[in-house]
Amino acid sequence: MDLERTPLLTDLYELTMLQTYLEHGMTERAVFEFFVRPAGPRRPFFVAAGVEHTLDWLSGMHFEEPELQWIRDSGLFRDGFAEELASLRFTGDVTALPEGTVCFPGEPIVRVSAPLPEAQLVESRLMNIVHFQTLIATKAARCRIAADDRRVVDFGLRRAHGAEAGLWAARACYMAGFDATATVAAGMRYGVPVTGTMAHSFILSHDSETEAFERFAHSHPNNVVLLIDTYDVDTGARQVAKLAPRLREAGIAVRAVRIDSGDLASHARSVRTILDDAGLQETGILVSGGLDEDSIAALVASGAPIDGFGVGSKVDTSADIAFLDSAYKLHEYAGRPRNKRSEGKQDLPGIKQVFRHFDVDGRMAGDIIGLTEEAAAGQPLLETVMRDGRRTGPAGTLDGARARCGEQLGQLPASLRALSTESGYPVTLSPGLNRLRSE
Amino acid sequence: MDLERTPLLTDLYELTMLQTYLEHGMTERAVFEFFVRPAGPRRPFFVAAGVEHTLDWLSGMHFEEPELQWIRDSGLFRDGFAEELASLRFTGDVTALPEGTVCFPGEPIVRVSAPLPEAQLVESRLMNIVHFQTLIATKAARCRIAADDRRVVDFGLRRAHGAEAGLWAARACYMAGFDATATVAAGMRYGVPVTGTMAHSFILSHDSETEAFERFAHSHPNNVVLLIDTYDVDTGARQVAKLAPRLREAGIAVRAVRIDSGDLASHARSVRTILDDAGLQETGILVSGGLDEDSIAALVASGAPIDGFGVGSKVDTSADIAFLDSAYKLHEYAGRPRNKRSEGKQDLPGIKQVFRHFDVDGRMAGDIIGLTEEAAAGQPLLETVMRDGRRTGPAGTLDGARARCGEQLGQLPASLRALSTESGYPVTLSPGLNRLRSE
Repeated sequence: MDLERTPLLTDLYELTMLQTYLEHGMTERAVFEFFVRPAGPRRPFFVAAGVEHTLDWLSGMHFEEPELQWIRDSGLFRDGFAEELASLRFTGDVTALPEGTVCFPGEPIVRVSAPLPEAQLVESRLMNIVHFQTLIATKAARCRIAADDRRVVDFGLRRAHGAEAGLWAARACYMAGFDATATVAAGMRYGVPVTGTMAHSFILSHDSETEAFERFAHSHPNNVVLLIDTYDVDTGARQVAKLAPRLREAGIAVRAVRIDSGDLASHARSVRTILDDAGLQETGILVSGGLDEDSIAALVASGAPIDGFGVGSKVDTSADIAFLDSAYKLHEYAGRPRNKRSEGKQDLPGIKQVFRHFDVDGRMAGDIIGLTEEAAAGQPLLETVMRDGRRTGPAGTLDGARARCGEQLGQLPASLRALSTESGYPVTLSPGLNRLRSE
Repeated sequence: MDLERTPLLTDLYELTMLQTYLEHGMTERAVFEFFVRPAGPRRPFFVAAGVEHTLDWLSGMHFEEPELQWIRDSGLFRDGFAEELASLRFTGDVTALPEGTVCFPGEPIVRVSAPLPEAQLVESRLMNIVHFQTLIATKAARCRIAADDRRVVDFGLRRAHGAEAGLWAARACYMAGFDATATVAAGMRYGVPVTGTMAHSFILSHDSETEAFERFAHSHPNNVVLLIDTYDVDTGARQVAKLAPRLREAGIAVRAVRIDSGDLASHARSVRTILDDAGLQETGILVSGGLDEDSIAALVASGAPIDGFGVGSKVDTSADIAFLDSAYKLHEYAGRPRNKRSEGKQDLPGIKQVFRHFDVDGRMAGDIIGLTEEAAAGQPLLETVMRDGRRTGPAGTLDGARARCGEQLGQLPASLRALSTESGYPVTLSPGLNRLRSE
C-alpha cells in the first residue's frame, strides 16, 4: 500500500456511502466545495495551498488488487463491491484558487464537480491534503511578514507530524516566502533550496569547539554557519573570531553563526560586537529555538542585529492553531441545491466564485462571493484546473505559487498584516447569493 | 523517492556533519538518547510510541541511486561522498521503552548506540517518528481515561497533518485504548478495527432523511449507525423511531444514532427519550464534533445518556499541545561522556535505565532514573530491541502495546489521571546519576 497514493487513506464511511450510492444508481453529478470557517484574530487571512497535490492524487486515484482484496475480506461490504471499485477513476472537474492565493473565511478554495460516488470518495484525502498545506502556508506567511526583510528558514521536520507533514511544511513555508528549508527531501522532490548548520552533538563529539568549527569549515567551505551556544555563546563567538583569520588564509569565509538558546536579542548584540571587533562584519547572525511570528516580530522590533531566523516546531505544527475549521460541503446534487441546517454551522449555499476588488494603490479592497453564473465586477479568483479527470493545463509551479503569494501578501491591507487583529477584510455576498441564501 | 523509507527525509545538517565525520574517521561509537521534557499540568505522563516504526525504518535504511544522484548534483557535498553513502546501513543497537509504556519527563524513550555517522544520520527521522506517535498516544490516553467505560473512536484523518499523521494517529489512538478508527488504511496496515457512520452529504443527496436512512440500513444491515442532525436532531430521532419497526421486519437493528452538532448532552437526553419511547432501548447514542478529553469528561460528568464518542481534529493534532519539547541528545562518544551546557536546557548525562516502583496495591509509586551499570531496585523499563542493526526478537504487536498501555494507565496514581494536575509523579535520580551530573 503506497500511502501517498492509496484510496484507502479515507474514512470508512466514504466507502460505505459509496456502496449505497451505487446500489441505487445515485451517480448523477454532485458539487462539493472546500472552504475554511473563521479562525479568529490570529488568522485574518489564509494562504491557499495543496491544490497541486490534490490534482496529482485525483489523476492517479485507483484501487490496486491488495486493496480490493482487503475490502473483500473485511466483511464490511457486499459481494461484488470490490469489483465495482476496481474500475473506479476520478472523472470530474476541479475548480480552485491557484496555490499561494490569499483568501478569507467562507471563500471556496477547491470545488469538485463529479458523479456523486467519486466526489464523495475523495473527500477525506482531499481535505487531508488541502487543509494541512493551507494551515502551514498561512502560518508561514505570518512569519514571513514578521521577519520583514530578514532571512527565514524552516527547521521543523523533526517535530512535524510524520513524513508528509515535514515534507509539505517545507514546501508550504517556501511558498509563503521562506528562503530555504533544512528538509533534504523537499529539495529533491520540489526544488526547495536546502540549508543547514550543525547540531550540538557535532560540537560535543569533538574534543573542542574550535576543532569542530575548523573541521566543518574545511569540509563545507562554501557554507560555513557555526553553532556557537553549546557551551557559552560569547566564548563561542570569540572562538570564531580567533579562528576566522586562519580560515581566511585558506580562502574560507564564515558566513554566519547560529545562536539556539538563551536571550537571543541580547546574545545577538554581544556576538555582533565580538564579530565586528574582529573585522567579521560580513558574518551574519542566525537565531533559532522555539520561534514563531510573535517572537520573530519581537526580535525585529528590538533592533537586535539578527540576519535570519530558523523556525521549526511552532510553524510546522501551526502550534497556536493546530487545525482550521474546514469543511467539504455538498451544495448541489442532480442539478438541485442542497444545504444542511445543523445548528451553528450555516454555510453558504450555491456554486460560487470569488471576485476581488482593489483600491487605487493596488491594495485589496474587498471580495464579493457570488454565484458562478453571476457576472459580478472584480477579479475572479477560482480557476478550472481539471476537467473530466484531466488537468486543463500544465501543473502550477512552486515558484509561481511563491511569487503569487508574495505579491498578494504585499497587497493585503496593513491592518491584516498585524499579528492579531479584530479588523476583518470586507467579504460581502452578491445579490444572487443573498437571494439563494434566504430561500 | 519512497517517502516512508527515504533517508533524505532528514535535515541537511545530518548529511553535512556526516561528511565531516567520515573525513576525520570519526566513526567510533556514539550514544544518543531521545526523551521528552516536562510539558505542563495537562501532560503529567506520556505514552511511549513509535519504536516499532523506528526499528522498521532503521532496518531498511539505505540510499537508492536517484537519491545518491541528487546528492551528487546538489553541489553541497564533496566528490565521492555519495559513493560512501551508497554502502551505509544502520549497524547499531537500540534500547527502548516498549510501545504503550507510560513514562515521564526526562526518562529516555529510545537509546541509539552506533558508529557516530549512523547515530547522527538517523536523528531527524527517528524524532519525526517517535515524537509524533508519543504525542498522539498520550493525547488519546487522556481521552480514554475521560470517556470512562464508553466507546471512543478516531475520526481525525481529514485534519491530521498529512497521510502518515492520519494513519499513525489511528494506530496511536488504538494503542491508547480507543475502540476503533474511521481510517481504512489503518485497518489494512495495522489491523485496527474500522468503523464509521455516514456524512451529512449522504443525507442531503437523498430526497428525504428517511429515504437516506432506509437505503443505508439495507445496504449495511450489520452496522446501522444513522446521523440524525442534518436538519433537526429530534425530528431525525423520530424518523429513526418510525423507521425502526420496518427495518426490524427485515431483520435489521439500528445499532446507534449519531449527533454531530449543538448541545450534545441535551440532545442526547431528548433523543434517548424518543428512542426509549419507541422501544429502541438497544439503540445507542454516539456523539461527535470538536471533542477532546475536556468535553468528553464534561459530557460523562453530566450524566447524559451517551454511549460513545467520535473524536477527530483535536486529538489527531493534539491541538492543545501540538508538539512536545523532545530531544535526541549525545551522551557519550568514543567511550567518553558528553554534555552540552546551553542555557535553560541542562539534560541528564549518562547512559540511563528507568527503574519503576509500585505500592502494595500495584499502583506506580515512583521511578528512579539511574545509570545502566547501576543495579538499582525496581522494574527496569528499557529493553534492548535491536543489536548490530537487527531486531533482537519478533516485532512487538499493536495488541500487545494496547494491553500494556491499558494496564499501565490503570496503575497510574489517581492524581495523574486528572485532566490537569500540578501534582507530579516522583521521578528521582540514582546516586550514580547524581554523581555524574554534579561532575
